[in-house]
Amino acid sequence: MQSVNVVFHIDENEKWPLVLANIRNLTHVVDVPSSNIEVLVNSKAVSVFDGVTLPAHTEKIAELALLGVQFSVCRNSLNGLQIQVESLPTFIKIVPVGVLELIEKQNKGAAYIKP
Amino acid sequence: MQSVNVVFHIDENEKWPLVLANIRNLTHVVDVPSSNIEVLVNSKAVSVFDGVTLPAHTEKIAELALLGVQFSVCRNSLNGLQIQVESLPTFIKIVPVGVLELIEKQNKGAAYIKP
Amino acid sequence: MQSVNVVFHIDENEKWPLVLANIRNLTHVVDVPSSNIEVLVNSKAVSVFDGVTLPAHTEKIAELALLGVQFSVCRNSLNGLQIQVESLPTFIKIVPVGVLELIEKQNKGAAYIKP
Repeated sequence: MQSVNVVFHIDENEKWPLVLANIRNLTHVVDVPSSNIEVLVNSKAVSVFDGVTLPAHTEKIAELALLGVQFSVCRNSLNGLQIQVESLPTFIKIVPVGVLELIEKQNKGAAYIKP
Repeated sequence: MQSVNVVFHIDENEKWPLVLANIRNLTHVVDVPSSNIEVLVNSKAVSVFDGVTLPAHTEKIAELALLGVQFSVCRNSLNGLQIQVESLPTFIKIVPVGVLELIEKQNKGAAYIKP
Repeated sequence: MQSVNVVFHIDENEKWPLVLANIRNLTHVVDVPSSNIEVLVNSKAVSVFDGVTLPAHTEKIAELALLGVQFSVCRNSLNGLQIQVESLPTFIKIVPVGVLELIEKQNKGAAYIKP
């Protein structure tokens, strides 16, 4: 199977089911370990990690992370919602500014998808 | 007129008027036959092809397809909404996984636009 | 600080606070004068410039423009909402077709972000 280099962008909580379904479908047809599949989470969508909202989604996030999907979360957005970095699962990568991560990924050849 | 290489992404039915208007405007200022203008339709937006929802939009889709705009539809999404592939207009291209098409188009130099 | 090349896309009025916050955060961590940060405004989002809607946002737009962020507005969309080009702040760049600008920017290496 082929490898892909892609960054998915999510900034609204309502989009979690769609984003996770999109990625799940993708993992069925590409070689995940040799791919670079990242999900950049910023703005209100980071509240999925507040421990209260959407626990079912965090389970699915953990499953995809185990397969090799990288979840990256904007520290600015966490601060804005007063979510402690330490409360996040350890497999999450924290990035200082989400939009800068989106730019740098595309500069390195990643496709951009905003479900 | 110049040629362009672009993939538009639509995954919500409410966005059809905006997407079609965006593309209509684009076709007025570029050379469509020598361009590569694709619309990738996935998730709930594929229900425009269920024969019931939004017949006015399917007419406009057919008009743009006649001009040379390629409409590509995600088979996964059709299956999820139980829409038969055979019921779609023959000018539609079926792709196995919509998000993979979005990645491959961008790898081939297409700009990505999500109206 | 690093330079970036990016085009933000906004076509809905409700997204102004998010887009402006995203860009504000970005300007804190990149060198703006040597960067190419553009905001392409089309569809209903151009009504921020109608002189009635959202005056608070136009102030923030002016502040970012002063820092070196380029705001570009689709003439087609202005015409559709009967907003006179002459009524816009002089720092705004008018482009004939917004989606063509999005394509051309990406062709020149700009990352695309749709908040």
